[in-house]
Amino acid sequence: MESRIAIFPGSFDPFTIGHESIVRRAIPLFDKIIISIGKNTNKSDFFPLEKRMEWINTVFNGVDKVEVKSFMGLTVDFCKKIGAGYILRGVRTSSDFEYERAIGQMNRKMNTNIETVFLLTQPEHTFITSTIVRDVIRHGGDASLFLPQKIKIDIMNQ
Amino acid sequence: MESRIAIFPGSFDPFTIGHESIVRRAIPLFDKIIISIGKNTNKSDFFPLEKRMEWINTVFNGVDKVEVKSFMGLTVDFCKKIGAGYILRGVRTSSDFEYERAIGQMNRKMNTNIETVFLLTQPEHTFITSTIVRDVIRHGGDASLFLPQKIKIDIMNQ
Amino acid sequence: MESRIAIFPGSFDPFTIGHESIVRRAIPLFDKIIISIGKNTNKSDFFPLEKRMEWINTVFNGVDKVEVKSFMGLTVDFCKKIGAGYILRGVRTSSDFEYERAIGQMNRKMNTNIETVFLLTQPEHTFITSTIVRDVIRHGGDASLFLPQKIKIDIMNQ
Amino acid sequence: MESRIAIFPGSFDPFTIGHESIVRRAIPLFDKIIISIGKNTNKSDFFPLEKRMEWINTVFNGVDKVEVKSFMGLTVDFCKKIGAGYILRGVRTSSDFEYERAIGQMNRKMNTNIETVFLLTQPEHTFITSTIVRDVIRHGGDASLFLPQKIKIDIMNQ
Amino acid sequence: MESRIAIFPGSFDPFTIGHESIVRRAIPLFDKIIISIGKNTNKSDFFPLEKRMEWINTVFNGVDKVEVKSFMGLTVDFCKKIGAGYILRGVRTSSDFEYERAIGQMNRKMNTNIETVFLLTQPEHTFITSTIVRDVIRHGGDASLFLPQKIKIDIMNQ
Amino acid sequence: MESRIAIFPGSFDPFTIGHESIVRRAIPLFDKIIISIGKNTNKSDFFPLEKRMEWINTVFNGVDKVEVKSFMGLTVDFCKKIGAGYILRGVRTSSDFEYERAIGQMNRKMNTNIETVFLLTQPEHTFITSTIVRDVIRHGGDASLFLPQKIKIDIMNQ
Repeated sequence: MESRIAIFPGSFDPFTIGHESIVRRAIPLFDKIIISIGKNTNKSDFFPLEKRMEWINTVFNGVDKVEVKSFMGLTVDFCKKIGAGYILRGVRTSSDFEYERAIGQMNRKMNTNIETVFLLTQPEHTFITSTIVRDVIRHGGDASLFLPQKIKIDIMNQ
Repeated sequence: MESRIAIFPGSFDPFTIGHESIVRRAIPLFDKIIISIGKNTNKSDFFPLEKRMEWINTVFNGVDKVEVKSFMGLTVDFCKKIGAGYILRGVRTSSDFEYERAIGQMNRKMNTNIETVFLLTQPEHTFITSTIVRDVIRHGGDASLFLPQKIKIDIMNQ
Repeated sequence: MESRIAIFPGSFDPFTIGHESIVRRAIPLFDKIIISIGKNTNKSDFFPLEKRMEWINTVFNGVDKVEVKSFMGLTVDFCKKIGAGYILRGVRTSSDFEYERAIGQMNRKMNTNIETVFLLTQPEHTFITSTIVRDVIRHGGDASLFLPQKIKIDIMNQ
Repeated sequence: MESRIAIFPGSFDPFTIGHESIVRRAIPLFDKIIISIGKNTNKSDFFPLEKRMEWINTVFNGVDKVEVKSFMGLTVDFCKKIGAGYILRGVRTSSDFEYERAIGQMNRKMNTNIETVFLLTQPEHTFITSTIVRDVIRHGGDASLFLPQKIKIDIMNQ
Repeated sequence: MESRIAIFPGSFDPFTIGHESIVRRAIPLFDKIIISIGKNTNKSDFFPLEKRMEWINTVFNGVDKVEVKSFMGLTVDFCKKIGAGYILRGVRTSSDFEYERAIGQMNRKMNTNIETVFLLTQPEHTFITSTIVRDVIRHGGDASLFLPQKIKIDIMNQ
Repeated sequence: MESRIAIFPGSFDPFTIGHESIVRRAIPLFDKIIISIGKNTNKSDFFPLEKRMEWINTVFNGVDKVEVKSFMGLTVDFCKKIGAGYILRGVRTSSDFEYERAIGQMNRKMNTNIETVFLLTQPEHTFITSTIVRDVIRHGGDASLFLPQKIKIDIMNQ
């Protein structure tokens, strides 16, 4: 039987408790989830790629079904390369949804074998985005409320 | 290993090509999909329950993973009763999404073991709803464009 | 040369200053605008059809390009019958838009020769709907702020 | 100095923890908050008016600044009658917002001395509405998660 | 009789099949449509202006009613200069709509003789934007699915 | 009795008639309103901070309850520092609302003593934003329609 492999793509700059919750809740649904950091040459990163991968690895240390990888190029091409049939996404708001719908429909147009699967963020995570977390850090605020246990210690000690 | 059982709840009054597409695309993701018609004592039906079940059965005739059932009471109680861990839903628009989010978050509040999984409707199905199809039929229009092959023949011959 | 005939469909129960503004602004764009009241057997009317037609006729008295008609059945069938190639609609809000998009795309699916054309309501009319006007009247309020000059006198004297 | 009197209008059928949270958080902002149940002759009630008023009174027992009243007619007329200059509303979602905006702008058009003041529902209350709570009760579910402590005991014992 | 001249403004970086569809469907409604590329000194272009104009000219080669021009300054000033009374726009989503509404209402505030006319994108084009097409090209993907026949050949050969 | 102090945060680049209207309508609700310009090191300003502060001071010259200040860092930290319990915001559209909700809920998560209070923009100001005003100025248009009396004269003379 064919295995259900999903990628969970994003910049994760940084990975938040919102992201963590989506991945943990999706684990029973898939045989493998590959958290996939897109290397975007256009956007400048806040945290270095290596740090972001290291943090996510720490969060899912011991969880066999979850891996972390980085990739360049189109998301659908990366899916094909690693044999993933699903793209996992969390949705928070209706404007999130309209953006995700455009990306998901375009991906399906480019490769009809790849299906995007959406889970809802939990209500208490609705307002948490990496952008907002970076803003809090930039203004000297305490971002630990929005980050997984192991990540928050690390940033705060920087 | 625990099996992945999903219900696809709705009134399906009638079942459209939009519904059909969501179910067909979800088949590889689940071990079983139970199309579940809620018997709502408040709303009056356009097509009788038996007819709606018969049509869906015809559409998925020979597809082992798909079954049709009806139920009364809360969706989460029905999931528990039949051992389903997932609620499958299609999302078309951002107002759809806000409605689905409320229902999905409430269901999860009432039973944290049940996860709602969303797929996107295909772009060309975005405007198709059972309400619109009923309106077309009511005004004497040709609804066959919006219905699965076997269902449309049947309604048109009524 | 083929003439540009549009219908402006609705229940107009009652016709508001928002409706009036859309029609007046669309006059230069079309050769004829037929304000078309759908006779919906499902919904119960607040004002009788004859009264609604009479009011609209009064508002556009002397404007040659504008006519009032009533119709039953599908909007696209009515367009075909009277030779209209355009459906004129006003849009107020983003939820309005999602509803109008579904109807507009379905109409085009059923008859590709018919195009829906949207104008924006003016900012100061954004909150005015027939539903809200009926609510004001029902609660004994003064609806004259939301109605064309000639209509408001009439309702107030009832 | 003029006092800041607000009404918090609604059907409260029933009053939820979402409503309670909005009122409690608004208490410091106003000198008096009058929870105002509109008697709508068009809609049929799920719980009787007396019961709804009694429940709210129990919830705010001992809170001097909060009162409960019922009213008929336009909200702005009721404000004028009792000397309230503010209408307090909670907003949950963007479709909520579009509805509230229409009502708020119409109220201000009818009486420019009355201002609508919005607070955000808390994230964990976003999906809670009276409609959803009634649905849960109707289907035999446990609505106590969504109701203030004193109200929930009462409904469950019915 | 006064002629109905519309501009269809945008950056068209690049011109997509979504844009093409809007223009072709609007041709019967207007006497002339001027596709108008705003020269925005703030944004950096992906494709040079000359190339964009050339592509659009190729697409509408032989269509007398359609012209291509570039302009600087305010859209309403350009309309006035060339005698256009209409701004033609396609709308895809509800967030699109909110943006377009703001621009349209501001343009009308600055020149009440200019009306913005909206057509709906076709369902299968809903997710196509120039931004998404540029992203596909940037990541080495095949954008030909989203571009008019003559444009796609050209980009692919670059 | 504790006083009701609100901040009205923003970049106000420039301060529009929309901003002015929100502040004037909020004056009766608060004991003091501090218009607070966040100094954002990331964004480049269109008008210099001193000019923006001077303009706002001119607009509210003689209004004792209104002050202008600038601040760096998190909005909630600034509130705490100056003893403000409320953040005042205007909301125009549903996408505005979703953004404001995220910020408001995050601020409340970081400091539960601070409540965000929303007023609706007036219908005729719905489309006015500082971004749109800057665009008009940049393209040589007349922005005076969108600016308070004293500000508009000044910009136009630049």
